[in-house]
Amino acid sequence: MRENWCATAARRRQEIYARIPEECLVDRALLAQQNLVDLPYRCGILTPKELRITEHDAVELLRRIRDGTYSAVEVTRAFCKRAAIAHQATNCLAWVMFREALDEAAVLDEYMRVKGKPKGPLHGLPISVKEHVYVAGTPATSGLTAWADQINPEDALLARILREAGAVFHVKTTNPQALMAIETDSNLFGRTVNPHNTNLTPGGSSGGEGALIAMRGSLLGIATDIGGSIRVPSGFSGVYGIKPSVARLPHGGLTGLHGGMENIVGVCGPMAACVDDLKLFCQVVLDSEPWHYEPSLVEIPWRTHLEAPKKLVIGVMWNDGIVQPHPPVTRALEEAVIMLRHAGHTIIEWKPSYHKELIDCINKAYFLDGGKEYRETMEKAGEPAVPIIDWILNTVATKEYTIQESWVINTERDRLRTLYSEQLRQTQVDAILCPVGPSVASAHDESRYWGYCSVFNALDFSAAVLPVSVVKDTDTWEKYPRVSQKPLSAMDAWYESLYDQGIEGPQKYRDAPISLQLVSRRFQEEKLLAVLASVDEVIRETPRLPINGH
Amino acid sequence: MRENWCATAARRRQEIYARIPEECLVDRALLAQQNLVDLPYRCGILTPKELRITEHDAVELLRRIRDGTYSAVEVTRAFCKRAAIAHQATNCLAWVMFREALDEAAVLDEYMRVKGKPKGPLHGLPISVKEHVYVAGTPATSGLTAWADQINPEDALLARILREAGAVFHVKTTNPQALMAIETDSNLFGRTVNPHNTNLTPGGSSGGEGALIAMRGSLLGIATDIGGSIRVPSGFSGVYGIKPSVARLPHGGLTGLHGGMENIVGVCGPMAACVDDLKLFCQVVLDSEPWHYEPSLVEIPWRTHLEAPKKLVIGVMWNDGIVQPHPPVTRALEEAVIMLRHAGHTIIEWKPSYHKELIDCINKAYFLDGGKEYRETMEKAGEPAVPIIDWILNTVATKEYTIQESWVINTERDRLRTLYSEQLRQTQVDAILCPVGPSVASAHDESRYWGYCSVFNALDFSAAVLPVSVVKDTDTWEKYPRVSQKPLSAMDAWYESLYDQGIEGPQKYRDAPISLQLVSRRFQEEKLLAVLASVDEVIRETPRLPINGH
Repeated sequence: MRENWCATAARRRQEIYARIPEECLVDRALLAQQNLVDLPYRCGILTPKELRITEHDAVELLRRIRDGTYSAVEVTRAFCKRAAIAHQATNCLAWVMFREALDEAAVLDEYMRVKGKPKGPLHGLPISVKEHVYVAGTPATSGLTAWADQINPEDALLARILREAGAVFHVKTTNPQALMAIETDSNLFGRTVNPHNTNLTPGGSSGGEGALIAMRGSLLGIATDIGGSIRVPSGFSGVYGIKPSVARLPHGGLTGLHGGMENIVGVCGPMAACVDDLKLFCQVVLDSEPWHYEPSLVEIPWRTHLEAPKKLVIGVMWNDGIVQPHPPVTRALEEAVIMLRHAGHTIIEWKPSYHKELIDCINKAYFLDGGKEYRETMEKAGEPAVPIIDWILNTVATKEYTIQESWVINTERDRLRTLYSEQLRQTQVDAILCPVGPSVASAHDESRYWGYCSVFNALDFSAAVLPVSVVKDTDTWEKYPRVSQKPLSAMDAWYESLYDQGIEGPQKYRDAPISLQLVSRRFQEEKLLAVLASVDEVIRETPRLPINGH
Repeated sequence: MRENWCATAARRRQEIYARIPEECLVDRALLAQQNLVDLPYRCGILTPKELRITEHDAVELLRRIRDGTYSAVEVTRAFCKRAAIAHQATNCLAWVMFREALDEAAVLDEYMRVKGKPKGPLHGLPISVKEHVYVAGTPATSGLTAWADQINPEDALLARILREAGAVFHVKTTNPQALMAIETDSNLFGRTVNPHNTNLTPGGSSGGEGALIAMRGSLLGIATDIGGSIRVPSGFSGVYGIKPSVARLPHGGLTGLHGGMENIVGVCGPMAACVDDLKLFCQVVLDSEPWHYEPSLVEIPWRTHLEAPKKLVIGVMWNDGIVQPHPPVTRALEEAVIMLRHAGHTIIEWKPSYHKELIDCINKAYFLDGGKEYRETMEKAGEPAVPIIDWILNTVATKEYTIQESWVINTERDRLRTLYSEQLRQTQVDAILCPVGPSVASAHDESRYWGYCSVFNALDFSAAVLPVSVVKDTDTWEKYPRVSQKPLSAMDAWYESLYDQGIEGPQKYRDAPISLQLVSRRFQEEKLLAVLASVDEVIRETPRLPINGH
């Protein structure tokens, strides 16, 4: 008899916990806090050396593995332990591969000993992988109970490239039911929470990555994005992420519904604890010339000569004309503009001229089949939709389109892309600076609007996220009022209602990171990361403002 | 009251003829021949100097305009006259712009006089344009009577780039009703015939370009290809053409049905009288960085460093396992292989492992709406389908697909693309050499099979065509028999029936050029043109074989 979905979910969660060694189990009393980011320091599970190892950035860590300061096994063990802690704090893991990772690390150490050189540029670096990406021998379910036991014998191309470069995969991270949500909740894995404030979501769909990297259970992770799924969790969790243009990085070897859909296509990209590690990821992957293996990729190598000018021209978009940002977002954007101007960069206003039309377009494109395949696959396992997916299926995925209607949508999208590109060309901005969303990390089941991100999927622009601040008690509507008191849309009214008056708003979102988004035109990932590095430096180094607790 | 389609067609044909100056009208007696390629020499309309001008290749001609040997007006006048002759021979023109072209040429001459330098790299070069591509102020109908009076105020991006580089547009060339055919016949323009043998078609859909360039009424033309529409007419007419990968060259600003369809996408590319002129076209266009204007384009500049190795490895595909080539094609391929081996290149066998599945896939993708939009647009004008389109609508465009079914087709196509790329990667061939189709130029209404070309649209590979020989009396089934006597398919039986036994086959196709196709992987246009140049040189310079009348 077929196992019911509750039993499948219970079994999977047990399988995950069973793979965590007893020495990594945290005293439950320590988990009774709202902010668990410093749990690795409080729980006494990591040695001081392991804490040090996990505090490096990947570029530095790799250098120290190469020079013999650390072995690959030491490094891997440290991240396995820290990932285990992160899971107990946030429920961010969807599969655990500690034993396999340590075995691989031992092989790498032996390689280095015998050959006297590293296997590749990522020799010994643990990398986390979003659940729906194939890693040989592990389940890839997209958070669907029906697919709980889909185990792929082979790595996705992206995973294979990283593995051949010397990376070690120690964990897979949670994604929401059917992937299409900016929170991370599923019947199969349960809810993933934000380590900065467990009342909040780490975002989605790469929410497990966000929570894990925020706790440094990994420095670098493989994530995916079709409407904000890299950027929202990066933003909500206070880490770095880049959504490249479609066909820049390998995308083959994922489970997911709507396979073969082209009207809007998702991408793989990295999430990381710093800018340089994003760059490392992209460069290693493109240096392998993946287009020979995945013919849908464009043959654009990593262009190291594409740099950002010393003095940037940045177009700032305060709000998208559809949903107005909450006070912390507005404040952080104001501060960023002041700091960037102070550093000599030019800031101009960026008008969101085509955002509404683009978002209408892409929302149709997401569910051209009217949500049929989603519903059918959930019915297969008899599992109900989690609240956020239920809301999406009832508000966004409401109409099935014909082939001819889909062509009309594509044509409209292309018209808008051309207009938007023209705006970019005429203003000559190096990047657009804007919110990641109207809110910092949402309370559970309250995330509704991904338009600040998805608009750049509709445009297929390169877009990255960096943390710039944390919520403060002074982030009130009074100090950072709405430009339009009248709601711009039903969605605007919804978001206004989420952030309470006076001090209650900041309290609800206490300790939540505030992040911003930088955007450049299509295929400009190299330049965008250079801009991101410049902006990050300005924000980290401007002394007057305490940023993100640093 | 609305004009009926017959009246519209009569008016359009009259408008075209009315724009041809009386001095360019050919004595009708001279047209009563089967082979009209040398009509420009026989009709006495061009001066000896004008004949000389039109015999240069474009690269050389441009040099002579720059050094003052010829004025832009002289050059333009020569090509206008020769194009007018070509039209009277083949019915290849869909619009005539002699006056406008001469005016523009005069402006260019003045520019050169005043500034002492050319306007751009194409200063003074007449370029022909396929009918459905927008040229400011001219009709763009796609051979549909319903659209006879669609006049666009602006140039297509490709036309604009060429115009800014100094090109002059003197004519638009015919394409078939609704574009989707490898012959060029429409109610609006009538039938275009092959100048080498007027009983044969010049191919399609860029058939007007083929006929015109074969008669040197133009040296370089803008054409389009979604299943062979550049390569078939290049092959049937004995000229050169390249179908680049999708998104390499600008594609914005065309009329056509199925706008917004993405499952299979057409491309623009050049047709020309020699290899170097194809290269000139691609380089000038990409040097303008068109991706700033058309965001669907990939940002890959023209890479002059991508060359072909001195000793090539070429995979030869004798037949595609679906339709076996006629004797002239087999013979020409055999000769080419001998010549290439003799020149020191390595030839290996190329297996058409996935051709059948790819062609099945793409034939579904062409008409996902079951031909609805085609039928509706023809009904709008009350015009009937011409025989070849009628056949297509009744055999290929027979089923309307749902969105979900279209995803399945895309997924299958991507699976096949990956397998084919793997074959290419493992064999390490520099190019595939194969027929353009099973036949040389078909008799009218007999073209049925575009699989030798469309398979490379399905793969999005770069593919080019070069003329290698002409039909000879010895091209019989007896000398060049079918590998499989049993028909491989109904289509194979059809093609077998077209080429009669003994001497009758060669007689039917007398004087028809024989061309071959060279193919490289996606986005390798630079390398493919380098391979094309090498192969072309071998074939032109191997002394023992009389090729293409040279």
